Amino acid sequence: MLTFYYDIMSQPSRAIFQFLKANNIVYKDHPVAIRKGEHKSDWYMKINPMGKVPAINDNGFILTESVAILKYLAVRYVVPDHWYPSDPQQRARVDEYMAWQHMNTRFNSAGLFWKEVMIPQMTGKPLDKATLNKAVSELNNTLDMLQTMFLKNQQFLCGDNITIADLLAVNELIQCLSSGRDVTQGRPKLQAWMNRVREKLHPHFDNSVGMIYKLRDMSRRQQARL
Amino acid sequence: MLTFYYDIMSQPSRAIFQFLKANNIVYKDHPVAIRKGEHKSDWYMKINPMGKVPAINDNGFILTESVAILKYLAVRYVVPDHWYPSDPQQRARVDEYMAWQHMNTRFNSAGLFWKEVMIPQMTGKPLDKATLNKAVSELNNTLDMLQTMFLKNQQFLCGDNITIADLLAVNELIQCLSSGRDVTQGRPKLQAWMNRVREKLHPHFDNSVGMIYKLRDMSRRQQARL
Repeated sequence: MLTFYYDIMSQPSRAIFQFLKANNIVYKDHPVAIRKGEHKSDWYMKINPMGKVPAINDNGFILTESVAILKYLAVRYVVPDHWYPSDPQQRARVDEYMAWQHMNTRFNSAGLFWKEVMIPQMTGKPLDKATLNKAVSELNNTLDMLQTMFLKNQQFLCGDNITIADLLAVNELIQCLSSGRDVTQGRPKLQAWMNRVREKLHPHFDNSVGMIYKLRDMSRRQQARL
Repeated sequence: MLTFYYDIMSQPSRAIFQFLKANNIVYKDHPVAIRKGEHKSDWYMKINPMGKVPAINDNGFILTESVAILKYLAVRYVVPDHWYPSDPQQRARVDEYMAWQHMNTRFNSAGLFWKEVMIPQMTGKPLDKATLNKAVSELNNTLDMLQTMFLKNQQFLCGDNITIADLLAVNELIQCLSSGRDVTQGRPKLQAWMNRVREKLHPHFDNSVGMIYKLRDMSRRQQARL
């Protein structure tokens, strides 16, 4: 049996959730509530000594790191080849994005989410303008590269079909929407790509980002009152 | 023909250099001198729009990101299976380390090297004690995890034979030696592992870290004079 440890508010957790659902992979659901500190609990630290979600346990084989989990599931379970192509060069493109994103999409989107949503929530006041502007500008560089280095004139980040790279990417970018910030605004190419990914994952994408849409609406109502 | 773009002082470049040499893969050598800014030159930015080494061009297929390059070479060329095992669970362990290291071994070793070697070289004065101590403490956490989460009682990071994960790891850790700092000191398990990797790569490991040994000796002579 495959057990999936995750928090639906965690970006990489959602990528795996959507992958499992889209491929009808049967698994045992095991939420780990970050807001209750369950990811740092004794029992979970035995699953992942880093105290991070997601993780899986596939018949006793425990695996951490979303990038490794997605690749493993795509090879170990029967899923269409396009998710993680077996052709060495096509696969290398997916590996390239999944290595690149750690210090780019992941680092800069999660960084902005933290600065724009989490820090104000914890301290009760917004982050200073200069720090926020710097974070926005760094994310903008990442968005530029997503368009010019990866997407180019393709339908998806690594070619003309959806791969596990797209899953990781959209879930990082959609997280920024929690503060009301739509990172695809003014970037029609990125917006069209995100819509294509959402369609391919329908209805599992929208089913897993409900909390983000709630946060977005709350934030926009708050901004309208100011 | 395979062309390899690299700077031997770059940690991930060295990992690929050692992999190519250890497996007798024929390639065209194309050094890109970071100290001369060649990685940001117009011609190289066309190879890698991120302006980073290493990169390869395999008969017109250009690939960046050391993690992706190592996986691609291990699959595309004829090399022993142990480097990147075809068994899904063994491969997943290698993928796990190679995903984990971005924000751990890579982030913290390269961070310390930058703070301890590059910043003093550029500014002419050492970094403040508090910042340096913080960087050392973060690297120590990484070294703890390398031992307890990965190495455990195995011969190598992902099992009992060398993989591309070990290559990435040793080259990050050895970089810290440039300031005279031996990160394996007081960590016999890590030291024994590093020696095993070095032996497996003989003579290509020592052949590619000559500049680091020179920097270490200079730094130790300087410290002895103080």
